[in-house]
Order: sequence, then structure tokens, then C-alpha cells
Amino acid sequence: MASIYRSLTINISKEMMCYSDFPIPADYPNYMHHSKILKYFRMYAEHFKLLEYIRYQTLVKSVKQRPDYSRSGQWEVLTQSKDGQEERHVFDAVICCSGHYTYPHLPLKEFPGIETFEGKYFHSWDYKGPEDMQGKRVVVVGIGNSGGDIAVEGSRVAEQVYLSTRRGAWIVRQVSDNGLPLDMKYNTRFVHILFQLMPVSFLNWFGEGKVNAMYDHTMYAIKPNHRLFSQIPVFNDELPLKILSGSVVIKSNIKEIRGSTVEFEDDSVLEKVDVIVFATGYNYDFPFLPQNAMYKTGHRVGLYKHVFPPTLEHSTLAVVGFIHALGAIMPQAEMQARWVASVFKGTKKLPPTQTMIKSVEKDTKVIQKNFIVSKRTPLQVDFVDYMDDLAGEIGIRPSLLWLFFTDYALFKRLLWGPMTAYQYRVTGKGKWDGARKAIFTQFDRMYEPLKTRKVRKPALPPLYDTMV
Amino acid sequence: MASIYRSLTINISKEMMCYSDFPIPADYPNYMHHSKILKYFRMYAEHFKLLEYIRYQTLVKSVKQRPDYSRSGQWEVLTQSKDGQEERHVFDAVICCSGHYTYPHLPLKEFPGIETFEGKYFHSWDYKGPEDMQGKRVVVVGIGNSGGDIAVEGSRVAEQVYLSTRRGAWIVRQVSDNGLPLDMKYNTRFVHILFQLMPVSFLNWFGEGKVNAMYDHTMYAIKPNHRLFSQIPVFNDELPLKILSGSVVIKSNIKEIRGSTVEFEDDSVLEKVDVIVFATGYNYDFPFLPQNAMYKTGHRVGLYKHVFPPTLEHSTLAVVGFIHALGAIMPQAEMQARWVASVFKGTKKLPPTQTMIKSVEKDTKVIQKNFIVSKRTPLQVDFVDYMDDLAGEIGIRPSLLWLFFTDYALFKRLLWGPMTAYQYRVTGKGKWDGARKAIFTQFDRMYEPLKTRKVRKPALPPLYDTMV
Repeated sequence: MASIYRSLTINISKEMMCYSDFPIPADYPNYMHHSKILKYFRMYAEHFKLLEYIRYQTLVKSVKQRPDYSRSGQWEVLTQSKDGQEERHVFDAVICCSGHYTYPHLPLKEFPGIETFEGKYFHSWDYKGPEDMQGKRVVVVGIGNSGGDIAVEGSRVAEQVYLSTRRGAWIVRQVSDNGLPLDMKYNTRFVHILFQLMPVSFLNWFGEGKVNAMYDHTMYAIKPNHRLFSQIPVFNDELPLKILSGSVVIKSNIKEIRGSTVEFEDDSVLEKVDVIVFATGYNYDFPFLPQNAMYKTGHRVGLYKHVFPPTLEHSTLAVVGFIHALGAIMPQAEMQARWVASVFKGTKKLPPTQTMIKSVEKDTKVIQKNFIVSKRTPLQVDFVDYMDDLAGEIGIRPSLLWLFFTDYALFKRLLWGPMTAYQYRVTGKGKWDGARKAIFTQFDRMYEPLKTRKVRKPALPPLYDTMV
Repeated sequence: MASIYRSLTINISKEMMCYSDFPIPADYPNYMHHSKILKYFRMYAEHFKLLEYIRYQTLVKSVKQRPDYSRSGQWEVLTQSKDGQEERHVFDAVICCSGHYTYPHLPLKEFPGIETFEGKYFHSWDYKGPEDMQGKRVVVVGIGNSGGDIAVEGSRVAEQVYLSTRRGAWIVRQVSDNGLPLDMKYNTRFVHILFQLMPVSFLNWFGEGKVNAMYDHTMYAIKPNHRLFSQIPVFNDELPLKILSGSVVIKSNIKEIRGSTVEFEDDSVLEKVDVIVFATGYNYDFPFLPQNAMYKTGHRVGLYKHVFPPTLEHSTLAVVGFIHALGAIMPQAEMQARWVASVFKGTKKLPPTQTMIKSVEKDTKVIQKNFIVSKRTPLQVDFVDYMDDLAGEIGIRPSLLWLFFTDYALFKRLLWGPMTAYQYRVTGKGKWDGARKAIFTQFDRMYEPLKTRKVRKPALPPLYDTMV
């Protein structure tokens, strides 16, 4: 199971995480607390009457090809209900949506002496809130999104929090220029085109300059060796002040643990450590899927366009939501699901196995070239490319050239505006009449929840005010 | 008594709050938690062997002129020890350092229906931590430094926090450009000179542009009607994300309270409010001082250069630390104390009462012209002007012109560098040999606590990296 902490708020803004035909209510905040996201999911499921098709609290123990799979493409699924009752089902097709935050990665072997540790240690998966850190000396290992959040939250109550990182990180603010949500400002087709045109070293230099202008990552001791755009950055607005006020102290990697003493790779030593939180990420695994669906390539499970196992005889098994990009998973998963639906229905056909394997291998090469990947972050895609590619498969990709001549106002918004998913409902199968309006009103919905106090706007432009 | 909350961290950086001849330890963080500040004060008192002259836990009940005051200038001080024991003392001189955060201002009359409120309400003076806000609906009244801090901290545990403000505020980040402490970057003589040369409307326009570039104060519903430099801004790095993520909702002023319902001036209504925190500031009062020392002018107690009551026959009573500027109180209070010492000793003489009253009245006019003052924020001074003015009184003001010719390296640092107090130990009475070195190493002490993890610096300048 996935797990979250009580204070968790998403780091993607609501318009950017929104499903393509069901805008998030205008009055919902831009960065939603997990309780609000659950509400939105429930509204979605009710609106589209999905609840009657979902069986909750049921564990999938295994997914196996039926004896007649070669002919039928069908699957035998073994489930277990909450009361332990096992049940066998036959399904024409299976979609696996278990994601990659299910198996905590707790690499204790990399921390010699952990077995002698006299305090309490746990994985961030187990973290719910900072209660147990009251007055304690805490080491958080790992400077990902969870590690940063836990360090910041813990620092309010702990005696001292140390944030240990092997590699450092680029850390960005969610409150971007002029207070816009970061992704609404930068996740645009225009920026995407810039990235095609400019050398990546220039983009890194420019972007790192902008990030360091907020706070110098060298001075704040968090600078990583990798360049800015080689990896998805960490989102954290509060960490810089915590570092500057000393309530979170950045440390290098742990070398050894002895009793309650923690020694770091720079030979510095901390005494009397009470708590170690391992925010060391997650492993992915699909133990319930048949082995022959798992085609290994690089660090990843090779899936055709990150969805279909390429080696199976039939296209009746898909993986959805196992994706990683500088953008929300939700609209990507929705796009994958729309493609999967048309493949399952037979409207779309997949290419032959050899073609798919070639494509998968090519993807692996591109990923390894452009991004820093590892066992735990095995893949990354470009958000715009990936969305457009899948949209092309099912014929719902908006044509900017066509729009330039026929609907210039919409063209402008698609080019300069945020990459919201509504644009994949403007044309083709599944077209939604509200899509155009949703695109024109996306900044209104961003602004709406902030209008909670009337503010006197300057009657004159500020510069004029200065002149008179 | 003054009161603080557990998580309170100062919003002035350590080099800027430092006393002039006793640098804060290099490894102390830049924005110190109150416990660290207390440690520094203790170190200071021990170093200068002050502890033997201080009697703690003693209440001053009254300070009265002795019968022979006209001749002696002496005071009769009535104290009460912790066990209730009263004692009378005779002092040659008295310094009152009770500051202006001692008398909570709780204007319940301005909140009709507060007597019907079914929840809990209290002044921010009583706030220690967010425990009681767990799962509650909280309204914080007032967007000053305390109100902002309490709203942000409460929002981590409360169901919802509302931050009600009558006037709004300009809110700035303590982590300034490139991650420097805000005051080290902008509280400089150079910026001070710019402020003398440029029209204030231009400075406001420029500064507001810079502040709005962080996040648009109109969009975030916090924009005040006053201009940026009319009042000391609020320091809060975390509030913008809390507003954008909806965990703190900005509201207008409260109109009425009915039971657990709170109605605001824009007619919006909140139901089921559990807690109201009045972060409505403090009144000042000196009830223990004799009435004839209190010369009222504008909203303030008229004190000659904010220190000496102008109407007394003798210069044997002084008020220190009752000051408000865009800069730390500590170095200003130290400067006042140095002046007071030389006046008490007789080295310096104060001008006649009429001259002092004229000066006080002139100050009041300047304050009213340049700043928005009120009963609770009765005064504000320009940090550099005020420090230089008092320093001039006692002959310790550094001469920039002289330094330009004799010590150009130091000149540069005084002109461009932060307005640290060390510069008032470079010359004159009380000169400290370490002052010059302290000025040359002030950025080293800023950097030192951040050096907690080794970071590989780029071998080549980043631009070059791009070219090759």
C-alpha cells in the first residue's frame, strides 16, 4: 500500500493535475491537501458513475494467463477480500495501476552499525506526523520531496534536525514568479519548444542561475553534482529559511552508526541521535504479474510507451500510472488509460513484438542519455512529448497549425498557456464541449480561491503614480 | 512581562543584531531561535562580568523623585522580590528598559459579540504552540509578525486557519536574493544614500515591484493601502505557500461574532469557529515612572532622541530600547546605552528643556510625515540616521571621508556592506581593536554555519561550461 503523512500537500497545482473533462472546483486551492484531492477523486467517480464498477478493499494476489490465453487473451485473477476470502475471476483484460510508491526502500546495509542504533528508526513510509520528534535529535536521510517535508515539519518540534544527503538536490519553490504556481508558469508548449531549440547546457546554466538567485545552492550546502534538468527537482518552499535559521542542518552521507552516535562521510560526528528517518525512496515491483510480462531493459521494466508489456501474445494487459515526468501523473495516467481503452476495444492495434521491443530499447537509450536514472527512479519522460505522443496514437492531439488559422485565441492559449489536459478534449474521439471554455477559464480557477479579501487595486498604473 | 512562543526565531540576522564589540559565535545560525539568543546574551553578560550587578526576578513597582531631587537628581525605587518582599532603594540614575511588548492590546470592544463567542479566544501573548489547534477551525486576527507566524504554524495541525486583517501588509522573505539574509543585503549605507537621493514614490514603486515579483500582493489578497516604505513590513517566508495551498485563508476585518459564527466586513460568514487568536499587538506603558517624566506628543511619549524625558530637571532618568526601525533593536539600544552612560557620567550634557522639547516636536512631525504611526506603533526612526546621530553625540561616528583616504578597504565595507554595529567601535571612546577585523569577517560568520556539507564547486565559471 502507498502511505502519506497527515500534512501532505501536493506539489502540482490543481489545473495541472486535473483530469481533462472534469475541472477541479474553482474554489479549491491551487496546491491541494490530500484530503481535498480525495474529495476530487470521489466527485469524479460519482460524476462518471464509476463506483458501481469498483470493488474496494480487495487484494490482487496473482494475475495469470488462462490455459486458453493463446486463443482468448484472458486472465485468471486471484483476489483476497478483507476477511481473508480468496476468489478466482476470469477477466478479458487487466490494467495494473499500483504505481511506484508501494514498496519502501530501506537499504540498511548501506548504513553500517544501524543494528547498534539505540534510538528509533523508520522509513518515511511510516511517517505520519512529527509527534515523536518533540525535543529529539533527528537525522533525516534523503533530500527528496518526503525527506525535505519531514525535515521541515520535524524542525518545528525537534531539538535539532539534520538532513543527510549523498548527492544534494536542486530545490525549487512552488510559489513561482509573481506568486503563480510554478508549473502553470513553466510547463507550457512555448517553454517546451525553447527546450528543443536551445542547447541543454545553456538551459541548465540559465535555470541554475535562476534557482541560485533564490538562494545559492553552494552556500546552502545542497548543490548536487548533476545539472538542473537531469532530474526532477525537489519542491520545497520552507527549507531555505530552515537552513538559514539552523533548525535544519544539511549533512553529507552517513558513514557509520555506533549506539546513538552517527558519523558522516566528512568525518563529522553527531552524538545522542534519537531518531533516524530513512526517506530513501521506493522500489517498484509487480509480484502479482506473470514473469513473462516483465521485459527488463536498463533499470526499468520495458513497457511499450510505458504501458504495454511488449512480449505478450495479446494486448490485454496494461500498466497505467507507472510514469515519471516534470508534470502530474494524473493527466498522464488518464491519457494512458484512454489509449489502453482503445487498444482493449480493438480500435487501435499495437505493432508486432519486435517493433515494440525496438521502441522500448530506444526509449531506454533516450532516458539514459537525458536523465539521471537509477534502480529506484528507473524512468523519466518529457511531459509534453509523452502526452502528445499518446494523444497522436488515439487521434486527440490538437493541431496548433490548424488552430492558428481557425481559432487564434485558443492557439495562443495552447502555445503560451499551461499544459493543462483540457486541450486533449478539444478534438477527436472523446471530445468535450466544455474543453475550450475550460482552457479560457483556467487562470480564473487559479485565481478564484485567493479572492478571499477585497483589495483596493491601484486606480492608476504604479509607474504613473510615481510620475505625478 | 514580555512573552514568546516556543518556535519563535528572530527575523533579524545575527550580524545585524550583534552588539558592537562581541560578535555572535561564527557557528551560530543567521536567524537564531530564541534559545540561542538567550545563550548569546548570557555569554555577553559573563564576558563583561555583568551578572554581579544584576538582580533578577525583582519587580520595579515605582520610580519616584526623592525629596531632595532638585538638588541630588536622585530617585527612590520601590521593588518587590519574588517572595513579595518590598524594598526601597535610592539610585543616582535610572534606566528604564521595559520595551513595548509588555502590555497585550486586546481591543474586545472592536469585535461586537465577542462575549457570545462559544470557542476559546486569547491574545498572541498567551500563544506558546499550536497544540490546542489540532483539528480546529481557527481565526487569527492581525497580520503582523506574530499573526503570520501563528497562522502558519497553526495551519499544520488545524482543520483550517483564517487570517483576518483590516489593513493588509507588505510581506517580505528573510531569505533574500541569492539566499543572503534580507537585512545584510539591504540595510547598508549605500542603500541609505539612495533613499536620500531618490523620490520616495519611486522607491516605493521599485520596492513594491520587487516584492510583488515574489508573489503579487493583490492576487494573494494581502495588499495594504499604504505604500511599502511607510511601515516596517512583515517578515514571513512560509505564508505565501500556505495561502496558495489554502491552509491559510486571508479574510477582511471581523464585523460581528455570534456564538461560534464569525462575520466579516465583506459579509462573508464562517461557521463553527473554535479558536480566535488576537494578534493585535501591544500597548506601551510606563506606569512605574513619575507622571512628569511623560511628555505626550502625537501618539508617543516624547523623549529627547527617544531616550531622555525632556521636562525633567536632571538627566538622571533614561529610557532605552523603546525604539522602532527597519533594523534590530539590540544595536540601537546599545548605542542609546553608550550615550546614556556618558550623560550620566557628565561627560555629555543635554541641551535645555526648551531645546529638547523643540527637538522632540520636530521628531514627531518627521515621523508623522514619513511613516504610518498609531497608538500602538507610536514611532519609527531611520536606522542609519538614528545610529549616526547618537554616535555623533558621543564622538564614535566613523568618518567615511577620512576612511576613503586612509583605509579604503574599510571605507568600501562601510559604504557597501551591511550596517553592522562594529563600525561604531572603529574610532572614539570605547574603540575596540577587534572592530576592523570583525567588519572584514562579518560575511565569513554569516557563511560559517552553512558549511555543514562539502559541495563540489564548479571548476569553471558556469558560462564557460556552456560555451564548450
